[in-house]
Amino acid sequence: MHTLHQESLVIDGLIIAKFDRAVFEDMRRAGLAAANCTVSVWEDFKTTVQNIARMKSLIRENSELASLVRSTGDILQAQRDNKTGIVLGFQNAHAFEDHLGHIEAFHDMGVRVVQLCYNTQNLIGTGCYERDGGLSDYGREVIAEMNRLGMLIDLSHVGARTSEETILESKQPVAYTHCLPAGLKQHPRNKSDEQLKFIADRGGFVGVTMFPPFLKRGIDATVDDYVEAIGYVIERIGEDCVGIGTDHTQGHGHEFFEWLTHDKGRHRRLTQFGTVRNPLGIRTIGELPNLTAAMERAGWKPSRIEKVIGGNWLRLFKQVWGA
Amino acid sequence: MHTLHQESLVIDGLIIAKFDRAVFEDMRRAGLAAANCTVSVWEDFKTTVQNIARMKSLIRENSELASLVRSTGDILQAQRDNKTGIVLGFQNAHAFEDHLGHIEAFHDMGVRVVQLCYNTQNLIGTGCYERDGGLSDYGREVIAEMNRLGMLIDLSHVGARTSEETILESKQPVAYTHCLPAGLKQHPRNKSDEQLKFIADRGGFVGVTMFPPFLKRGIDATVDDYVEAIGYVIERIGEDCVGIGTDHTQGHGHEFFEWLTHDKGRHRRLTQFGTVRNPLGIRTIGELPNLTAAMERAGWKPSRIEKVIGGNWLRLFKQVWGA
Repeated sequence: MHTLHQESLVIDGLIIAKFDRAVFEDMRRAGLAAANCTVSVWEDFKTTVQNIARMKSLIRENSELASLVRSTGDILQAQRDNKTGIVLGFQNAHAFEDHLGHIEAFHDMGVRVVQLCYNTQNLIGTGCYERDGGLSDYGREVIAEMNRLGMLIDLSHVGARTSEETILESKQPVAYTHCLPAGLKQHPRNKSDEQLKFIADRGGFVGVTMFPPFLKRGIDATVDDYVEAIGYVIERIGEDCVGIGTDHTQGHGHEFFEWLTHDKGRHRRLTQFGTVRNPLGIRTIGELPNLTAAMERAGWKPSRIEKVIGGNWLRLFKQVWGA
Repeated sequence: MHTLHQESLVIDGLIIAKFDRAVFEDMRRAGLAAANCTVSVWEDFKTTVQNIARMKSLIRENSELASLVRSTGDILQAQRDNKTGIVLGFQNAHAFEDHLGHIEAFHDMGVRVVQLCYNTQNLIGTGCYERDGGLSDYGREVIAEMNRLGMLIDLSHVGARTSEETILESKQPVAYTHCLPAGLKQHPRNKSDEQLKFIADRGGFVGVTMFPPFLKRGIDATVDDYVEAIGYVIERIGEDCVGIGTDHTQGHGHEFFEWLTHDKGRHRRLTQFGTVRNPLGIRTIGELPNLTAAMERAGWKPSRIEKVIGGNWLRLFKQVWGA
């Protein structure tokens, strides 16, 4: 007998693991048809190209577990083949550097989701850990080019003003791929009810994360707290534009988190995560079926679960990517 | 009444013009279904990515005249649409720099033909204007990666030893996309009868150029001298692996030729072209129908002309590109 999880199309809107064969194997345990996998945070243009090359090489070496996603057709094919489709994503458009032509080059390489800023200011706008002067004029050109190419704009770590201006500027829906509601815990990374409604009212999307530092109960949380947070968001913006973006950091250690939490990976400290231990029941990527089970336990209807566990992401990707 | 030229699929194996709308218009006058267009010579990785972005932008702005080629299907589509398909090509693998991962990135961007060396030594091998120690071990890895991706290897400006070792190393056919026979004029850029036979005997290809410094009669040549040179090559290796690679430099002036003829674009002089004036009858890209007419005048059978004017290139591209 198949579980609802096994029967559903499952998509994770954000994973930033230390990608290797073990992670790909765990993605299969998770039943993931696709995940947005971070291949750039603080890296410059060239280093990011090389990160992409490394990921493609890893996919080739593990081609029975994973495949590269360029379209939603590739996600459906991955599902049929019992593989996980790897969506190449950036958590910072820093890698675009100062040349709009780099954006199409990355699109050619398969990049399909890009967060405009990561925590701090770049050429485009400002992140959520400092004063935010809003979108630059170059940032508006970047958005136009991403819209033209069909690249999803992510605002999770972007400042409030830059986010609002981007939502208004973009001709395509944009997303917080991995965020939590400030209504459950105040935190610079969490979004207020007004922010959640603002993006949703304009056709946008919210992926809900479970990253412990932003959860109400922190490292004491369980998978049921995660379901509560997703439910909180659904109550405010409905069930049709909500998905999951776990933010799994599997395999990474202290050094990686130090790099993430310092501006440009090396300058002043921006935040301190403390111990990173995911909610009980979903500590690892492979435990994802427990999330669907927890949703069922919470009394969610199967139709809602199927949307939130992946169906909504697929629809958004198709709308933005054009295929 | 249609001429043989109009009825044929016409492909130019090498154009290094100052690409702009005027050149695209002239390509339409030429009846070109496709041309291998140089977008990198001495440029590094990043500048080459930006050259590609500029070319794609130019194609978009002139989409009624030109389209980007990623497969031979795109060439046939361009022919049906009365457009010229732009094949992105490098005259130097210098842009690959020191990372094999850059090769797939360029393939993703649409690059389909790459010359291993331009006139001098690089990480891979050596060009035809200095002592040639042959293929490096990194060069062998580059060839394996180009073979895997389906990127045509060009040897026109490559030294004799590196060329011979590449022909033996490559699992796919390789090409001199634009060369002339040394049997008609001795020149470091021209290929001996033995070299022509060596590449042809191993499934390779020879595109014949008309670049005046390498022609027997130089700038006094006419389109009939060009036909004579092509005929000379066909006599030695048959008519099934020969095409044209005009090497049109249309729109470029003194400064560009100075850049081409100095190592890395700025160091010691390698050669001196003198006045660059193409053969009478084919001074400009748009006069290409005169070449077909000259072949007919020379008594060539239509079946031979159709192969040499484009059919052979299409077959080679399909074999190497895989589509």
